[in-house]
Amino acid sequence: MAEYNHLAVVKFKEGVVVEDVLKGLEKLVSEIESVKSFVWGQDIESQEMLRQGFTHAFLMTFGCKEDLTAFVGHPNHVEFSSTFSTVIEKVLLLDFPVVTVKAPA
Amino acid sequence: MAEYNHLAVVKFKEGVVVEDVLKGLEKLVSEIESVKSFVWGQDIESQEMLRQGFTHAFLMTFGCKEDLTAFVGHPNHVEFSSTFSTVIEKVLLLDFPVVTVKAPA
Repeated sequence: MAEYNHLAVVKFKEGVVVEDVLKGLEKLVSEIESVKSFVWGQDIESQEMLRQGFTHAFLMTFGCKEDLTAFVGHPNHVEFSSTFSTVIEKVLLLDFPVVTVKAPA
Repeated sequence: MAEYNHLAVVKFKEGVVVEDVLKGLEKLVSEIESVKSFVWGQDIESQEMLRQGFTHAFLMTFGCKEDLTAFVGHPNHVEFSSTFSTVIEKVLLLDFPVVTVKAPA
């Protein structure tokens, strides 16, 4: 069964303290066991044009699609999302089964 | 030293055979050793609005920023990019140092 990725590419509103948002995300993924891994990053160097103003990427991996579905519907996620939506200027969300072409050695 | 991610979110032009593009990508990452891992996926289920028409995500991980820089400047990548740019309707690129909040068990 394929792993599932939940990818969010985000531009935060001006003045938002991203560290606070991250604390919420850290709490969320620590509370919900089905989140297999969670990495994020801030792009500070690419050409603005290439990233269309987006600055942050958040990537969660789940063992299977059912785990992702359960996460999305989890009350803690629903609550987090409602707060999250107030601090972002725009967001791009993609959920997809992971196809691994090259795995880490 | 932080790993670096190279993330591309893409919408292909109509009629493009994505399998052919993937063959090129598979060749590329097999030729360039500094690509530590490469996964991709196609989102076929999310709400169109949330992904703004984008359909595919491609994620390459490098051991450090220098490896990513070398990859971007590699002649094979330059050649691939020039072909790639002809088959995409739009693309979003983010490069970022990876912050791991939750690692796979």
